[in-house]
Amino acid sequence: MNKNSSNIMALAPNTSNKRETVCIFGTGDFGRALGHKMIQSGYPVVFGSRSTKTSSLIPKGAEVLSHAEAAQKAAVIITAIQRQHYSFLTPLTEILHGKVLVDVSNNLKINEHPESNAEYLAQLVPGAKVVKAFNTVSAWALQSGTLDASRQVFVCGDDMEAKQTVMNIVRALGLTPLDQGSLLAAQEIENYPLQLFPMWKFPILLSFGLAAFFFFYCLIRNVIYPYVYENKDFSFFIAISIPNRICPILALILLALVYLPGVLAAIIQLYRGTKYHRFPDWLDKWMLCRKQLGLVALAFASLHVLYTLVIPIRYFVRWRMSNRIISQVLNNKTEPLDTTNAWLSDSYVALGILGFFLFVLLGITSLPSVSNNVNWREFRFVQSKLGYLTLILCTAHTLVYGGKRFLSPSSYRWYLPNAYMLSLIIPCMVLVVKFVLIFPCLDKPLTRIRQGWERNPQYSE
Amino acid sequence: MNKNSSNIMALAPNTSNKRETVCIFGTGDFGRALGHKMIQSGYPVVFGSRSTKTSSLIPKGAEVLSHAEAAQKAAVIITAIQRQHYSFLTPLTEILHGKVLVDVSNNLKINEHPESNAEYLAQLVPGAKVVKAFNTVSAWALQSGTLDASRQVFVCGDDMEAKQTVMNIVRALGLTPLDQGSLLAAQEIENYPLQLFPMWKFPILLSFGLAAFFFFYCLIRNVIYPYVYENKDFSFFIAISIPNRICPILALILLALVYLPGVLAAIIQLYRGTKYHRFPDWLDKWMLCRKQLGLVALAFASLHVLYTLVIPIRYFVRWRMSNRIISQVLNNKTEPLDTTNAWLSDSYVALGILGFFLFVLLGITSLPSVSNNVNWREFRFVQSKLGYLTLILCTAHTLVYGGKRFLSPSSYRWYLPNAYMLSLIIPCMVLVVKFVLIFPCLDKPLTRIRQGWERNPQYSE
Amino acid sequence: MNKNSSNIMALAPNTSNKRETVCIFGTGDFGRALGHKMIQSGYPVVFGSRSTKTSSLIPKGAEVLSHAEAAQKAAVIITAIQRQHYSFLTPLTEILHGKVLVDVSNNLKINEHPESNAEYLAQLVPGAKVVKAFNTVSAWALQSGTLDASRQVFVCGDDMEAKQTVMNIVRALGLTPLDQGSLLAAQEIENYPLQLFPMWKFPILLSFGLAAFFFFYCLIRNVIYPYVYENKDFSFFIAISIPNRICPILALILLALVYLPGVLAAIIQLYRGTKYHRFPDWLDKWMLCRKQLGLVALAFASLHVLYTLVIPIRYFVRWRMSNRIISQVLNNKTEPLDTTNAWLSDSYVALGILGFFLFVLLGITSLPSVSNNVNWREFRFVQSKLGYLTLILCTAHTLVYGGKRFLSPSSYRWYLPNAYMLSLIIPCMVLVVKFVLIFPCLDKPLTRIRQGWERNPQYSE
Repeated sequence: MNKNSSNIMALAPNTSNKRETVCIFGTGDFGRALGHKMIQSGYPVVFGSRSTKTSSLIPKGAEVLSHAEAAQKAAVIITAIQRQHYSFLTPLTEILHGKVLVDVSNNLKINEHPESNAEYLAQLVPGAKVVKAFNTVSAWALQSGTLDASRQVFVCGDDMEAKQTVMNIVRALGLTPLDQGSLLAAQEIENYPLQLFPMWKFPILLSFGLAAFFFFYCLIRNVIYPYVYENKDFSFFIAISIPNRICPILALILLALVYLPGVLAAIIQLYRGTKYHRFPDWLDKWMLCRKQLGLVALAFASLHVLYTLVIPIRYFVRWRMSNRIISQVLNNKTEPLDTTNAWLSDSYVALGILGFFLFVLLGITSLPSVSNNVNWREFRFVQSKLGYLTLILCTAHTLVYGGKRFLSPSSYRWYLPNAYMLSLIIPCMVLVVKFVLIFPCLDKPLTRIRQGWERNPQYSE
Repeated sequence: MNKNSSNIMALAPNTSNKRETVCIFGTGDFGRALGHKMIQSGYPVVFGSRSTKTSSLIPKGAEVLSHAEAAQKAAVIITAIQRQHYSFLTPLTEILHGKVLVDVSNNLKINEHPESNAEYLAQLVPGAKVVKAFNTVSAWALQSGTLDASRQVFVCGDDMEAKQTVMNIVRALGLTPLDQGSLLAAQEIENYPLQLFPMWKFPILLSFGLAAFFFFYCLIRNVIYPYVYENKDFSFFIAISIPNRICPILALILLALVYLPGVLAAIIQLYRGTKYHRFPDWLDKWMLCRKQLGLVALAFASLHVLYTLVIPIRYFVRWRMSNRIISQVLNNKTEPLDTTNAWLSDSYVALGILGFFLFVLLGITSLPSVSNNVNWREFRFVQSKLGYLTLILCTAHTLVYGGKRFLSPSSYRWYLPNAYMLSLIIPCMVLVVKFVLIFPCLDKPLTRIRQGWERNPQYSE
Repeated sequence: MNKNSSNIMALAPNTSNKRETVCIFGTGDFGRALGHKMIQSGYPVVFGSRSTKTSSLIPKGAEVLSHAEAAQKAAVIITAIQRQHYSFLTPLTEILHGKVLVDVSNNLKINEHPESNAEYLAQLVPGAKVVKAFNTVSAWALQSGTLDASRQVFVCGDDMEAKQTVMNIVRALGLTPLDQGSLLAAQEIENYPLQLFPMWKFPILLSFGLAAFFFFYCLIRNVIYPYVYENKDFSFFIAISIPNRICPILALILLALVYLPGVLAAIIQLYRGTKYHRFPDWLDKWMLCRKQLGLVALAFASLHVLYTLVIPIRYFVRWRMSNRIISQVLNNKTEPLDTTNAWLSDSYVALGILGFFLFVLLGITSLPSVSNNVNWREFRFVQSKLGYLTLILCTAHTLVYGGKRFLSPSSYRWYLPNAYMLSLIIPCMVLVVKFVLIFPCLDKPLTRIRQGWERNPQYSE
């Protein structure tokens, strides 16, 4: 419904005669954009400003008065001014008494001030019912009507009725209000628009680092080594062959890193004999970004699938294949079917397909709308049981891919093992430790610890 | 939770003894279906009807009385009758005074009447607390229990308490109420069920038109031309080869059309020196359906990927390949590896993979549940930065695909250039203009204009 | 916003001085975990317990008092104790009068008691305002901060203000409250965390059964038969070839089973001449799990696509292809292009691609966040029109795949037809019956029946 409301609004301007006047303090860009949108939605708007001469910028139909006069005309006053100028409101305390005062301000930095702007405003004008709202919407979005991402308006405030009034205005503008509770939530609401994927920074930086390392590793083994020893120019491997080695390696390592903190946490709890001690900080942070790590891993796995499926289309692969056939013909010999090879090739591909399939399933269940429709038991089942199955399948995929090559000396160039061997270290470690933790002698005490039991209750004092 | 609630309800009928009686005016199909569902959910139901003899159609357990008698028995009255018969309610004004009157009606056309049915009802029965609800649910869905799409019930009304009462009934029926604010929202709510993908019409029509044009274009070049000049029957190209030319072309053009209006808007703003003039109507509409354009482009890109990946499975491709190898053998010559070709082939494929990958990422972030969890800054980052990167990668993919063929005269048949050349026009234009707009001499004034600055403030009066 | 709130909370502990004291009855694991989280979020917490000596397990900063003393200190009391111990609350009735009493308990089985725990509590302590909440959150999730799936807290209660108070606490803990209406909803809320994909059981069991049947069927035809008659070891077909036969068969059958109940319902309604009789129970249940059936079908279709696209990478396929080419060369003959074969091969692949593409589209529209943004008319259009088109395309894909092989006796081994022939039975039946139902002589009465008309009104009495 929401996505189309703005154009429906345009078709139904006849609803304009019943709305109550809204006052906007401040004629800056955001104040004007908000006023413009409100007039469109049928609200009489009055601006409160230091200079009361009507500028051409003020939206048509709005009045400009002094702050005091404007505030008297409306029950809802929106303060579209910056925090440092809030002090001018002190003389207006009496006029604002009992009125709804909407704080729309934002900061430049996260947690810039000790208290939120809205709480500061509530202290300055004690009699007013302060409501925080609209800070997540941009002036440009209001102006242009392209409100795709920003339909959600977080609203908080201590007065229920004032909050309801503001939420009705939000809805009338074609936006979606989200009640965030009391004014204490304002700090969080003010921090929200300043974030840029905070939970994604670590996973993305980590994967860039790993990708760079493995890129040069593969470059040495697959491009520089044949150039030095066989004088062959395989520089075009940079386009597909090397990325198709990096992607599966990163996907496997990152997937294992999703499950490693859980295993570490279990070991720490077993060692301490209690769950009532906080984990080290790095472990806490790591656990909180597991979902993001998993999704980055899924991205690399998807790229690996695409890179693999285009193999038969590549010029180099076609050239190599016809060369092989031609040399077979010229030598007048035909290979018989090697059943072991057929088994290895097919089962490695099949394991990869099943692993990727489950991985995509995990990704789909982590979509907010899907995970919201799932209870805790179901979520645990998917993310833990299916997750470990995915890890097992992907590790097996890599192991079978290695096949007979593990011990062959020809796969070591300059003493460097094949890159995929390095990728197996962490997943195998995680799976082995997890397997050990399943044994009853460890699983039972762990379960009891997680239910609140303590080995040494006095230890924790 | 919601998806399973109806069958849980069936298991828990013991909650039936506490609900308050609900009255339904009208024994038509929708009234009966609603009554049936309410009785299932434990509400005593009384029907108000002109003829009070109990028909076999009335759900078991419901009483049928005259309108006046029925209304007196309940605090909530649902008017399941058509707007043109509302006038019979005027004599009941006194009985309905202070009661909750729920309007469930729909219209046949968008904006059929000057005011919404619910507002009309509120004028007719001034003392009643009118609430709009249930109009988005169909009788068939209520009857059959298959409520997948229609769980959401939009509710609006001027009286908070009446709205809460209705929302509780909605929840008890296993549906999800959505508070849409005051009764002014009723018009929009009544228009909602009449829409059929209004924002998708233009993108889909446009892509059908373009697809038809390029289909005949490719048919002439790839089927009719070889038939006329070489007498070869390539009619089977219609199944895969030609669609696999049309899809990437359409994907690229539509993707460029997503970014073209933004570029045009910037030029218009720079020329006018202000952002406070409305854009031309066509530009406004175009900007509002950018998301849909992008998703249609993504659909074509996905088809292109599938069509491309099946290439090596096709009989024709296998036949051509073995023919080539056989002719090489018979001529007793082997081609050496052409590194330039390997580079061109691999980098064109790699660019395509990366472009498609980013495109899918853009598509995922446009899912409502994902974009709701993203703030304005993050949304801008994804849709603008990643979006342009996608456009650059896809354009480069097409350019490298062209490779050396651009100037070769053999690629012109009947003076018609290859179809992919035509697809490059708009994307290249958009990228060039965007590149120019990044220069500080244009970017600075544009940023200031978007922050509300005006070159000629008097001009706008 | 939600996903990041917990770590933002950690950065903003200065909001702790304004919260009102909350009392928690019970010092078990869940009580302590909830208390811990509340203290973190700035609430003064007091525990009510039988033994009032402070154990080391009690979160730091919390007081432990007798039940009566603790209850007097707070306006909100959370009863984190099991239902069988509720009786100890009876003596406290007076102290709890007018207070908000939050029931967080869960049961071990679905519908374990005749009334919900919260309703039982409300009967025991008649003066208290009982609110159900927090039962969907686990102690472990509260403790560890990993609240991905369980952010949603269902809240219900008869007192609006009490509910609002609890919802504000829920929000302050970084969770999302969902108002579920009156206390009658408690039964459903208590059943919710006990479910494990209830709607998925039937589709998954069905597909496992079918998969096992077709696995052995294909094993006999494709592995055992050639081993017995030709002494060839094709056991490696188990990895990819046989799954790639099972997956499309299951996808097609399950997709047809999505549309079969609708067709059966239409026949039953036509036969009965009314829609006011309930369908047989099995049909009702079948109709309710159509979405899940469709998604399982989509999963099999996706696997089929992956298995098909890796065909050219498989060792066996490459070996067979080069063998064919070599034998052609050695026999010194080249095959000419067979246009019929090219048509068959290309159109079968193209039908599969289009069918899969539409299938994925159907899957995307069944995502909760997408289907919530779509009205009833749009949903019907997608799920019914596009759904049947998908079924037609997929059936045609299989028919064309069969091509000339249907009547060839060589495709019968041990009198067993090819597995794909079996998969065509149900889809063809559904399509034929649906086609018949479209004829006006059947469609018209059906439409009238669905609008509420009855052939024999007296029949239904």
